[in-house]
Amino acid sequence: MKNCLKFVLQLSTILLIVTGTALAAEIPATNLAALTDVQKYERAIHIMAMLLVGFGFLMVFVRKYGRSALTATYLLVSISIPLYFLKESYHGVGTATGVIDKLILAEFAAASLLICAGAVLGRMKMHQYLLLGLIFVPFYALNEWIVLNNGLGLITGKVVDTGGSIVIHAFGAIFGLGVAASMTTKEEYATPIECDDTSDRYSLLGSMVLWVFWPSFCAALVAPADVPRTAVNVILALCGSTLATYFASVKLRGKISAADIANATLAGGVAIGSTCDLASPGTAFAIGILAGVVSTFGFAVIQAKLTDLTGKVDTCGVFYLHGLPGMLGGIAALVVVSGINFTAQLTAMVVTIVIAAFAGLLSGKVIALLGERAEPYVDSEEFEGEETCQEELQELIAEADLSR
Amino acid sequence: MKNCLKFVLQLSTILLIVTGTALAAEIPATNLAALTDVQKYERAIHIMAMLLVGFGFLMVFVRKYGRSALTATYLLVSISIPLYFLKESYHGVGTATGVIDKLILAEFAAASLLICAGAVLGRMKMHQYLLLGLIFVPFYALNEWIVLNNGLGLITGKVVDTGGSIVIHAFGAIFGLGVAASMTTKEEYATPIECDDTSDRYSLLGSMVLWVFWPSFCAALVAPADVPRTAVNVILALCGSTLATYFASVKLRGKISAADIANATLAGGVAIGSTCDLASPGTAFAIGILAGVVSTFGFAVIQAKLTDLTGKVDTCGVFYLHGLPGMLGGIAALVVVSGINFTAQLTAMVVTIVIAAFAGLLSGKVIALLGERAEPYVDSEEFEGEETCQEELQELIAEADLSR
Amino acid sequence: MKNCLKFVLQLSTILLIVTGTALAAEIPATNLAALTDVQKYERAIHIMAMLLVGFGFLMVFVRKYGRSALTATYLLVSISIPLYFLKESYHGVGTATGVIDKLILAEFAAASLLICAGAVLGRMKMHQYLLLGLIFVPFYALNEWIVLNNGLGLITGKVVDTGGSIVIHAFGAIFGLGVAASMTTKEEYATPIECDDTSDRYSLLGSMVLWVFWPSFCAALVAPADVPRTAVNVILALCGSTLATYFASVKLRGKISAADIANATLAGGVAIGSTCDLASPGTAFAIGILAGVVSTFGFAVIQAKLTDLTGKVDTCGVFYLHGLPGMLGGIAALVVVSGINFTAQLTAMVVTIVIAAFAGLLSGKVIALLGERAEPYVDSEEFEGEETCQEELQELIAEADLSR
Repeated sequence: MKNCLKFVLQLSTILLIVTGTALAAEIPATNLAALTDVQKYERAIHIMAMLLVGFGFLMVFVRKYGRSALTATYLLVSISIPLYFLKESYHGVGTATGVIDKLILAEFAAASLLICAGAVLGRMKMHQYLLLGLIFVPFYALNEWIVLNNGLGLITGKVVDTGGSIVIHAFGAIFGLGVAASMTTKEEYATPIECDDTSDRYSLLGSMVLWVFWPSFCAALVAPADVPRTAVNVILALCGSTLATYFASVKLRGKISAADIANATLAGGVAIGSTCDLASPGTAFAIGILAGVVSTFGFAVIQAKLTDLTGKVDTCGVFYLHGLPGMLGGIAALVVVSGINFTAQLTAMVVTIVIAAFAGLLSGKVIALLGERAEPYVDSEEFEGEETCQEELQELIAEADLSR
Repeated sequence: MKNCLKFVLQLSTILLIVTGTALAAEIPATNLAALTDVQKYERAIHIMAMLLVGFGFLMVFVRKYGRSALTATYLLVSISIPLYFLKESYHGVGTATGVIDKLILAEFAAASLLICAGAVLGRMKMHQYLLLGLIFVPFYALNEWIVLNNGLGLITGKVVDTGGSIVIHAFGAIFGLGVAASMTTKEEYATPIECDDTSDRYSLLGSMVLWVFWPSFCAALVAPADVPRTAVNVILALCGSTLATYFASVKLRGKISAADIANATLAGGVAIGSTCDLASPGTAFAIGILAGVVSTFGFAVIQAKLTDLTGKVDTCGVFYLHGLPGMLGGIAALVVVSGINFTAQLTAMVVTIVIAAFAGLLSGKVIALLGERAEPYVDSEEFEGEETCQEELQELIAEADLSR
Repeated sequence: MKNCLKFVLQLSTILLIVTGTALAAEIPATNLAALTDVQKYERAIHIMAMLLVGFGFLMVFVRKYGRSALTATYLLVSISIPLYFLKESYHGVGTATGVIDKLILAEFAAASLLICAGAVLGRMKMHQYLLLGLIFVPFYALNEWIVLNNGLGLITGKVVDTGGSIVIHAFGAIFGLGVAASMTTKEEYATPIECDDTSDRYSLLGSMVLWVFWPSFCAALVAPADVPRTAVNVILALCGSTLATYFASVKLRGKISAADIANATLAGGVAIGSTCDLASPGTAFAIGILAGVVSTFGFAVIQAKLTDLTGKVDTCGVFYLHGLPGMLGGIAALVVVSGINFTAQLTAMVVTIVIAAFAGLLSGKVIALLGERAEPYVDSEEFEGEETCQEELQELIAEADLSR
């Protein structure tokens, strides 16, 4: 009897331990997972701020095309995110288990699309941006599947591209160049892109919003314990490119260019993408400086020459902000990451460039079938409202100049 | 002796288990609660960005009234939040236990007040906005108490309104219409509301800030595990209304209207409010499309007719952005949520409309006692500073036109 | 044998308890620490939004100097953050263990530097801002080390300054006054600072971004459980200063000044800094009101007199937004916090003022060696691009005025 009692006591003790421990371990685990997802959600909102306010206002530098640029941004985001979700419901990417992971991947697709659209900004009718989105997302997803999930078995090892230097930035930029190459008309080539101090300040607003939230873009899908280090790397890379842009802009142009400051400052964020969670702080800073110099050189020296040489216009200069620094980022991984699989990384870059270029050229042909704008770079072609105050004033100035 | 020892050992084991488990379970539990509250805090900050930058800049579309609109936004937020806290310290709402819950409820009150003020924007002196806030918040809290806490025993079941389609958006809009109905003067009716490309771009900035942080508004008080699904629903609804707004605007007006794009794009966020944590993604997208169409139809077709018919001005068109889509959201719950209590939901809507309309009309009468603006829609009546450059220029243009 | 079995059972039970409990307690503990750091990261991003978009656009109120103000903001942030990290790698501050704590401390240094630069905005060449940053950060770190870590043994107790009223705001403002005192030229004193309605609206954007994210600045390094209370205190203080600013501005000037609204509304955030985690909500609101009155009085009454009296220009009025309210915050702690060490708190304030004033005067002399701007307050001196539309127009107006 006493032994029996003891046995029951003993047994209940063990049960208590097991269930107690299990409870103690498991309840928090569930909650921890939920809290971790909510933290990813926070970063997803930061990325959304980049997509709409960041990319949107960065593109407002085209003076008379501000309302159109912002509306196009709205439409490109609104077409690509549901489309990516739709794709996910049929063919989910292996790594994205939770709904919040899918949201972040959809935002990545939207970012890449916005980069692409920057190359042809001001030269498409509004519904053509929508068509561009419809064509872009499947190709983007195809490249993502081949490169990151090794969909075709081409990639023989791990590709290092946490923050998307290759699959987001370079892909979007090269796709956009393809579209521009298929579409640029002589009138567009001949029409200068005007900006003024108000459009410049809007553009700098977009730039700063991108700068501020860039760490959340790169660390979006990183494990909680790695977020701080990743964030500091991204911030140091951005500091590096910002400082380098100022010096390079003054050196190359004699004076500072607001366009350089708005754009090339961000090149550090683009280039650190691949290695944001792996680089040391010092390396991140150095990658940022290098990216800032390369990007500013692109805007200040290459852009004008290449435009004249090819007769093709890259409205926002996405090749110099996203294309070159994106590839720089992919290559930097070869130097920075010990034990990296060279073949896999280089294959990923080549595949990305090939798909983006081919799909971009094709898309441009298709989209061109829907016609072209009569007047590039002006809101008035598609938006309601009389001439704005400033436009009237410019006419007035022109008249006054004539009468002098 | 040996038994005694065993007993002590046994007892200490059990104590160890109990306290150990308790410790293991409780320490994290406390911390988890704190971390959960900090996550609510993050969403509260997002909402604050909506209140000031979002609502504030959305209202800057009135060209000459930008400084006033932003100052009014500052004052309306700063009067309503402390007032709601003051109320809470006497008569707390049942569900708001922590201080961060109270902050979020106070922000909801501020949002509803800003919606209300949008209806009479540009036609009140600055101190009248403050008086509006002082009158609005008690009525808002009364409605909240009756509808969400069943204060009078009128509501016979659960009201489905997580993101406040009914108690925040519809309440604020109808209250605002009541104030406008009591206050609009002939001069105000006759004075056109002017905008230009700079004020439009500011307005789109406000719109985008609202769009970006809207998921945090709807998911503010949702449990951590439900945040991701809720957020995705809100984003899909906003994508739906954005796409629908573009098509409806072109269809109904021939050209795109920047006002439609700035406003009706957000209707999906308003309408998904009630069911944001319950709808499926597809349903959320559909609700967004419907809301975008309804709202754009309101701005493009109804607004001008209703203004002429009644002689009353709804400056920001809050009826078409918050009123109609808010009611649509409340009704959508009847279709979307299985097992919803029809009577409770409909009673909630009727009570909200009645209290808002009555209190709005009354407030308008009271506020009108403090006088009216001589010149509607211009900063210069209450703000320091000479005429701005643009105003001088417009005079110059007018002169030039005369001399031609 | 049976006893032996029992003993093993007993022992294994205890082991199970101990390891089980340990596991249950430790696994979450690690994750909790990671999640807590990610939450600090969120606040660090909010602070970054304040540094770039907030401070940056607040300074765009100088009409013709917008691009320069934003570029200077970019450079000041990008020089100070890596510099502070560099310092940390040699001589870490005691309280900052994790990398995210260091990031936040670096951001605090950047905030103080931006405040300092506001005093001389528009009167330095771009590379001189960089030099200012290089000189400022070591002195800032020295003061931080003496006051907060008692580096020299001068501080005999705990200094109450959680949100940095003293070491961030007052230090930056007084340092800036020192630089301005060493540098202001006669031409600068004689050149009026122009603003217009567009630059005012940009300034209000910066102001609102600062307002929105201020709670994250004050609560950046606060324990999770104290974040909600701290945040509510900061928000109530900001509500108080916003309301007080409106009334004081109308009372002191007759009309509202957009500059008061953009600046003095934030004084509550500055003044609540020291006691943000310790004050009661009511006290926080009262401190905010007091700070709003003091700051508005500074802008409306003192600024013009002091400028004429001394011949020195404080471009952004940082003394009235950060200097006076910062000291008010430090002194408020003496009244609000029970058991505060008066000597320690007052010593901290005196040390801060002495170091900032001395270092500021010295820095001004050094920076002046690199030359001075020919034309203060205009972008065109250092930026590319023809005259902007508005500037051409103003010439046109001037001509038209002459020809009348």
